[in-house]
Amino acid sequence: MQYLIPLDTLTAALSRLPGIGRRTAERMAMALVQDQKGLMRILANALLEADENMVTCEQCGSITLTTKNPCDLCTRPRRDAHMLCVVESPADIIKIEESGGFHGRYHALMGRLSPMNGVGAVDLRVDKLLQRIADEKIAEVIITLGTDVESDATAVYLREILSTRSVKVSRIAFGLPAGSAVEYTDAATLSRAIKGRRTIDE
Amino acid sequence: MQYLIPLDTLTAALSRLPGIGRRTAERMAMALVQDQKGLMRILANALLEADENMVTCEQCGSITLTTKNPCDLCTRPRRDAHMLCVVESPADIIKIEESGGFHGRYHALMGRLSPMNGVGAVDLRVDKLLQRIADEKIAEVIITLGTDVESDATAVYLREILSTRSVKVSRIAFGLPAGSAVEYTDAATLSRAIKGRRTIDE
Repeated sequence: MQYLIPLDTLTAALSRLPGIGRRTAERMAMALVQDQKGLMRILANALLEADENMVTCEQCGSITLTTKNPCDLCTRPRRDAHMLCVVESPADIIKIEESGGFHGRYHALMGRLSPMNGVGAVDLRVDKLLQRIADEKIAEVIITLGTDVESDATAVYLREILSTRSVKVSRIAFGLPAGSAVEYTDAATLSRAIKGRRTIDE
Repeated sequence: MQYLIPLDTLTAALSRLPGIGRRTAERMAMALVQDQKGLMRILANALLEADENMVTCEQCGSITLTTKNPCDLCTRPRRDAHMLCVVESPADIIKIEESGGFHGRYHALMGRLSPMNGVGAVDLRVDKLLQRIADEKIAEVIITLGTDVESDATAVYLREILSTRSVKVSRIAFGLPAGSAVEYTDAATLSRAIKGRRTIDE
C-alpha cells in the first residue's frame, strides 16, 4: 500500500540481500512489522554493531574486528607463515578454518576473473598478493578456488604470473567428495578424479 | 569463527527471519559484512524507521503509521462501513486492497484456530470483532480465510458465534483460480468448485 512508506523502504532494503526476491522481502517485512518480540530492533542493533566493529583485514582480506587489524590469522605466531592459501572471499576463509585442514596464512582475492562481469585482474588483490609473497618470504601458494570456468581461469592466470617468482604454486585437489560412491558420482567429477590420481606409495 | 562475535550475533538475528535457515543467514551475514554500498546501515535504518513509525491499527489490526491510528481503511468515509472483511493477518489486508475487490472495512483476527499450536479463540481478536459488529452496525461479515483445516475450523467457529447476532455471515468462494482449465485442476479444487456452483441467472 502506497501510504506505508516505512514498510516499502524496509522491503526494498531486504530485497537487496543475496537470494531474496521481492516476494520473500515482502513476507519478511510483514513478519518483522508484526513481530511481538522486538526482532526489528534486535536485527537493527546487530547490523549496526557489525557495521561498527567488523572490517576486512588489510593484510589477508578476511573479516576481522576493527580492533584486530591485521587479523589473528595473519599475526598468530603458531601459524605457518610461509604457506599462503589464496581464496576468493572471506567466507572461504571461515569455511577452511572450520575444516581445520590448513594452518598457514590466507589471502582473499575478493573475486574471480570474470570478463563477462567486467572483473579483471586489476579488480582482484593480485598486486597485494605479489607484494606479500616477496615481503613474507612465502614458500608455497595454494590456490584454493572452485571448479567452475571463472575459478579455472583465475587459477591459470595466477599460475602464470607466479611462474617468474621463486614460489611453489599448487592447487587443491578435485575428486570424489568424502563419503561418496563411484557409482553415484557425476561424469565431470569422476573425470577430474581420474585425471588427478596419485600413486599410492606417494 | 568464535572470535567474530558481531558476525555471529548478526547471523543469529537473521536466522530468526521467516524461511531463513542457519546456512542462508550465514551467507547473508557474510554478504552484508562484505558489502561496499553501506547495505548494513541502510537496512538497520529501514528497520529502526519501520519500528518507530508503524503500528497495528487498534481497530482493524492492519499495519498503519503511528500517526494514523485508527488507520485510513477504518476512517475513510468513502468505504462501506457496514461490510466487514474478516481476515487472518494484516498481510491479507494488503493483498485484498491490491486486488481492488473490496471496499468495506477490515478485521484481522491475528491468527487461526489451531489447538495443535495452542491457539484458541481467546488468542484471536474475536471479542473485538463482536464489539465492532455491535458498535459499527455491521450488516455483513465476509469470512476471508483460506481452505486449509485451521481456516475451515475458524470459519465454522465464527459462523456459530455470529449466528445469534443480527448479521449476515458469508465466506469467500472456493473454485477454479482465474485463467485455469478444468483439465489441469486438482480434485479438491474441482470438488469445491462444483459444490459451490451458482445458478447462471443469479
